[in-house]
Amino acid sequence: MKEIQAAKNNKIKELKKLQQRKYRNQSETYLLEGYHLVEEAVKAGVEIKEVYLDERGLKLWQDWVKQHELDYYLLSNEAMNALSELPTPQGMIALVKKEENTPADFSGKWLLLDNVQDPGNVGTIVRTADAAGFDGIFLGKGTADRYSGKVLRSMQGSQFHLPIFSGALEEVIPVFKKHASKVYGTALDPLVLSYTQVKQESSFALILGNEGQGVAEEILQMTDQNLYIPIYGKAESLNVGVAAGILMYSFV
Amino acid sequence: MKEIQAAKNNKIKELKKLQQRKYRNQSETYLLEGYHLVEEAVKAGVEIKEVYLDERGLKLWQDWVKQHELDYYLLSNEAMNALSELPTPQGMIALVKKEENTPADFSGKWLLLDNVQDPGNVGTIVRTADAAGFDGIFLGKGTADRYSGKVLRSMQGSQFHLPIFSGALEEVIPVFKKHASKVYGTALDPLVLSYTQVKQESSFALILGNEGQGVAEEILQMTDQNLYIPIYGKAESLNVGVAAGILMYSFV
Repeated sequence: MKEIQAAKNNKIKELKKLQQRKYRNQSETYLLEGYHLVEEAVKAGVEIKEVYLDERGLKLWQDWVKQHELDYYLLSNEAMNALSELPTPQGMIALVKKEENTPADFSGKWLLLDNVQDPGNVGTIVRTADAAGFDGIFLGKGTADRYSGKVLRSMQGSQFHLPIFSGALEEVIPVFKKHASKVYGTALDPLVLSYTQVKQESSFALILGNEGQGVAEEILQMTDQNLYIPIYGKAESLNVGVAAGILMYSFV
Repeated sequence: MKEIQAAKNNKIKELKKLQQRKYRNQSETYLLEGYHLVEEAVKAGVEIKEVYLDERGLKLWQDWVKQHELDYYLLSNEAMNALSELPTPQGMIALVKKEENTPADFSGKWLLLDNVQDPGNVGTIVRTADAAGFDGIFLGKGTADRYSGKVLRSMQGSQFHLPIFSGALEEVIPVFKKHASKVYGTALDPLVLSYTQVKQESSFALILGNEGQGVAEEILQMTDQNLYIPIYGKAESLNVGVAAGILMYSFV
């Protein structure tokens, strides 16, 4: 165990850079905050490089950290406050290795996100896909980074329950089609088919799109079928996280 | 038209107090920001007491404001920035009369919220209830204030499309039952009935609960039937806004 006292310590400064996507990409690491999430990461076999604890965290979790043979630092409250993204730090932050790979199997129920920008929406959608028993998720261009603090917090650990991949949907869609999965787009257009009229498939990929523009036109043109959720009242649209939930649960 | 230059003007200071619930309750007024929402309020026949415009807003909407015979003020950018809750003010803020009344009719599809605390969740749920063609909403104890800025923004105008009431659910539930509406609670408990097994009713009240604790036990004991949404994966629960969407759309 090493100790860090000062908020302006060089290591803290370097770690804080990981709040930005470009440094996460460069270093292929990210920060994960809170014992609950770090525990899920360990259970999932994800590589933890180091753990940072404050006094309270050390009391609660030192045994656990030692048991898992993790390198750890004791941070002063000042240093922990500097490193944490939360108004009230959770006592534990881990430096975690990013995982970027490609799926071995394209069968089953998949969710594809095109340019979903709000981190809370992306996190909620991943959590819902987990609950609905989906087999995997592809995050397409423009989608909020799965390793940003806000996305990590709103996924609530579901990222360790189902595989998440990144890739251009234009390249991924043909692969699903080749594997005999139906590919469904979603559009705010009653001229396409209502989701209630789709017959159950065992393998499919469902695409949800940007909060304002929906799924990009060029992607809608690549699908087998585009679907919409009927609006019975006077709202102009549904929140994308809510729409994802309605569709995923109707397909299971 | 009157003009307000200084951010520390007394009227601005008084209006800013309306960002707090207690002042909204005392004055029975609230602030509504953005032309789109104010226009919906006017269309819905809601009483607008005054309108505040900045230079840009005056250019765009002075004719519209005059046409609707609304009292209006021109605010300096400084004064508008002080009054607005947004990082980028929308050019128009209205002072609106709160509407608190009781429903004349309890038939149809109703949503009841018990202690849903997050303003974004409450707003999203109201918007989804509008989309799903629900007939009305009751906001129970502990639920975020429908007149707070965050709730108003996330409702996106749906509050003007369906009636919203406030009241203790313990008092409201017996009234629904008396009017022969089925009352459904929701619980994270697979011992209750799955929502997929409920037969369609034309009149019902569906209750959703607090983000952490769900619907209070004493309320669950008053319902005709409690329902759950199956979790097929490893997530512990669904976001309440997503759960509300899945249930409302499955019932229409």
